[in-house]
Amino acid sequence: MRLILHIREMQSWSEAERRAGKRVALVPTMGFLHEGHLSLVREGSGRADRVIASLFVNPKQFAPNEDYRNYPRDFERDRALLEREGVDILFHPSAEEMYREGHHTHVEVEKLDRFLCGAFRPGHFRGVTTVVAKLLNIVRPHVAIFGTKDYQQLQIIRRMVEDLNFDIEIVGQPIVREKDGLAMSSRNAYLSAPERQAALCLHRSLKKAESLVRHGEREGGRILSAVKEELEKEPLARIEYVSLCDPRSLEELESIRDQALLALAVWVGRARLIDNTVLTA
Amino acid sequence: MRLILHIREMQSWSEAERRAGKRVALVPTMGFLHEGHLSLVREGSGRADRVIASLFVNPKQFAPNEDYRNYPRDFERDRALLEREGVDILFHPSAEEMYREGHHTHVEVEKLDRFLCGAFRPGHFRGVTTVVAKLLNIVRPHVAIFGTKDYQQLQIIRRMVEDLNFDIEIVGQPIVREKDGLAMSSRNAYLSAPERQAALCLHRSLKKAESLVRHGEREGGRILSAVKEELEKEPLARIEYVSLCDPRSLEELESIRDQALLALAVWVGRARLIDNTVLTA
Repeated sequence: MRLILHIREMQSWSEAERRAGKRVALVPTMGFLHEGHLSLVREGSGRADRVIASLFVNPKQFAPNEDYRNYPRDFERDRALLEREGVDILFHPSAEEMYREGHHTHVEVEKLDRFLCGAFRPGHFRGVTTVVAKLLNIVRPHVAIFGTKDYQQLQIIRRMVEDLNFDIEIVGQPIVREKDGLAMSSRNAYLSAPERQAALCLHRSLKKAESLVRHGEREGGRILSAVKEELEKEPLARIEYVSLCDPRSLEELESIRDQALLALAVWVGRARLIDNTVLTA
Repeated sequence: MRLILHIREMQSWSEAERRAGKRVALVPTMGFLHEGHLSLVREGSGRADRVIASLFVNPKQFAPNEDYRNYPRDFERDRALLEREGVDILFHPSAEEMYREGHHTHVEVEKLDRFLCGAFRPGHFRGVTTVVAKLLNIVRPHVAIFGTKDYQQLQIIRRMVEDLNFDIEIVGQPIVREKDGLAMSSRNAYLSAPERQAALCLHRSLKKAESLVRHGEREGGRILSAVKEELEKEPLARIEYVSLCDPRSLEELESIRDQALLALAVWVGRARLIDNTVLTA
């Protein structure tokens, strides 16, 4: 596995691979990798001749009061994990390399950024779309793989790629969970032992909703109440939002006709955790 | 010359050319071509193996009160002119092809859009950068050629290309003028015979400034006064702005140290005309 730190070198490498007829996959990450990331890498390997993983903790997607400085990092461990997965290139630029003096451009997807996390993290998705647009231009992949834990992020990136005509396939991969159901997240590292136990309430509440729907419940209000009730049983958890919405437009749904996204953000200690499930009537 | 109307077809064509090792140039236009556009095409021919001219009157860069509907169009004449210049592809998508149902993404360059035309045409440059980002992703050129009559547009596009890491060279070409000095513009078609005569005041005022600087004037205030005085002699002309600014940052200059951009926008009848010159101390 080759480590590339500079944009120009990354662009030249990819251009040469494309000209040689190779199909290139990108797996963008912020590092501190877990099985969820590795499942994206494996999906990339199955879909392309070359796999590039990027590792960049993007300052532009964190608000000043958020955890940019404390975001967990372990470069050597990440490098070893990616090497073991057969990744061809680890692209790991510095913040100075990505945002040069005088940088003033952003990419924004309107409307979809108003809902869910967008309502609580103003500017977050603008930071995400800007850095993803940059990575797509730097790596020039044929396909890019994203997780669905941040379901809204995936929808916004799909919208951007379609609207700006990036000739790139966007693939979403299922959430990978710990054995007890907790969705894998780099931010789980923030949890103390009792908080780690408390964090199970997210998955438990989603399971409860799935069970209600399986038993015929279609009424949004009743599903949301049941989910909140489950979360509120946990004294270490604080709900940021629980939303039942259309999986494509992300607009709130009053009831489930065919499919609905149930998405939630919950604080446990200093970890802001998100999780979701798609409910099918 | 082949006419391409659809995005997918354009992308496939370019991808094949790139893989065959051909260098591709893009000349983006809104049509109603004049010698200025053709000079861009010739520059493109000199710099690449394949030249693509795009013709798209972009609704997103016109405000509701502006001249989108009346913008001059003559597709058959444009097609013949481009054919004669040896253009390989005329890319001519419809507005529906470029902005599909549900389009919600824009690209914005902050700061540079505050000055000059940006101050009088809110949203204009956001429309320009969005469509240019799309065209760059659709045509995937190695080099794109723009005129310098809209100097601010060129600077904003350069900034966007650098900030979003498009691996594309941006080339600016000198203003092409009629024999009597009027900068060529598709909007000159709006001018009646007396207005056409009146429109010469733009070039005359720039010439006056150049002469002042040649004779040692460095004081911004005095140069601007002389330019305005010249423009105000013309009863059919109405000044929108006259600005002396840094050619890169576009920030106003009090005096000329090395180089300064003198840029102006003037209404003559229903034509909003722009022109500029770079003054060198």
